[in-house]
Amino acid sequence: MSPLTIVTLDWVPDFPRGFVRDIRARWAAEEAGRPYQVETVPGAQKTEAHREIQPYQQVPAIRDGDLTLFESGAIVLHLAEGTPLLPPDRRSEVTQWVISALNTVEIATGHWLLMILQRDYPEIFGPGATDAQLAHARRGMDLRLGQLERELDGREWLLGDQFTAGDILMADTLRQIDHDGVLDGFPGLRAYLDRAKARPGFQRAYDAQMDHWKAADKARAAVAAS
Amino acid sequence: MSPLTIVTLDWVPDFPRGFVRDIRARWAAEEAGRPYQVETVPGAQKTEAHREIQPYQQVPAIRDGDLTLFESGAIVLHLAEGTPLLPPDRRSEVTQWVISALNTVEIATGHWLLMILQRDYPEIFGPGATDAQLAHARRGMDLRLGQLERELDGREWLLGDQFTAGDILMADTLRQIDHDGVLDGFPGLRAYLDRAKARPGFQRAYDAQMDHWKAADKARAAVAAS
Repeated sequence: MSPLTIVTLDWVPDFPRGFVRDIRARWAAEEAGRPYQVETVPGAQKTEAHREIQPYQQVPAIRDGDLTLFESGAIVLHLAEGTPLLPPDRRSEVTQWVISALNTVEIATGHWLLMILQRDYPEIFGPGATDAQLAHARRGMDLRLGQLERELDGREWLLGDQFTAGDILMADTLRQIDHDGVLDGFPGLRAYLDRAKARPGFQRAYDAQMDHWKAADKARAAVAAS
Repeated sequence: MSPLTIVTLDWVPDFPRGFVRDIRARWAAEEAGRPYQVETVPGAQKTEAHREIQPYQQVPAIRDGDLTLFESGAIVLHLAEGTPLLPPDRRSEVTQWVISALNTVEIATGHWLLMILQRDYPEIFGPGATDAQLAHARRGMDLRLGQLERELDGREWLLGDQFTAGDILMADTLRQIDHDGVLDGFPGLRAYLDRAKARPGFQRAYDAQMDHWKAADKARAAVAAS
């Protein structure tokens, strides 16, 4: 097996910790039983070296042998190849759910989330929404969440009994909006997300990301003290 | 080869014609040399039968033999299997560009597009944005478009010489925002989109969708007159 490298940022402030999307690559690697190392790119000053591996200068990216790959959904599908995360006879359905999370669900949740971030961090995310706009975005999101909950009814995971790449993307998309009481009205999604977060692979990925930021804090403190 | 059915709406008003996302399924079918038939679901009154094939009651969906599939990106990747649209040794890269179009690019373009639709059709799309919000969304979109243009520099298609499933999704995502002068500042993207639209497969898909709406108008007129 070729060595796997996950590329993430060298440091982030507190609020996105635990949510930076390298967690999806880490989670898939854990579920797939792939050891990995971590490489960083600077978050504060975007570099040409960063652009060469990720044209939007975002994270994550991975290096897997000779292949460099970006987009967390494509990374998770790539790491899922040949593992139970991607049953070969259900490839198109797994892809359907990966894309459902990243397009249909995230277009709705991301619209609301951006407004919340604008409310809390206008200096970073831009001019805030009115109450009417926020309520409209919330209704659009709630419509999608209700449809998803109904679809999941009676199933443990999106494909039934088998946890797949689609669940990594869908659960992580839901996790990003799990505040301000959003999931209170959706007990089925709440239970689905809790099941996903209880997986040892998620726990290890989460802890590894949080440890990464702690080490980054320590490195910055050492530089500041020197 | 199993019979392929593309599911779309029975009728839409003028403004989304040519842009309803079944065009992506039609385009992929044309590029893949797959004949298809069309089945419709009512747009005005959402039905349980619609929910059974598409949990968000959107279009398109497809039936391919025993498989029912939704999400245009997953449909295009499915139809691309075994064709030059998805070279087996570059599967992860093709998937990367499909998801790049549907998440990274469309999150930015969709945010701006929604504001434009709210400005033009507030009764359908909700409360309109302020000039400052619209300008902020435009800057976010322009940043992504500039990064994409730079990445495409010197290439005919996203993977180089080979037109793939990623180009269907990326070109169609760009096509949706090709108004209000958005692409004027991006001659590389303009040329890329024009190359994509010049493909006979796109032309046939576009004409077939427009013919579908014309036939729908005729059917409605016949019902109204009876």
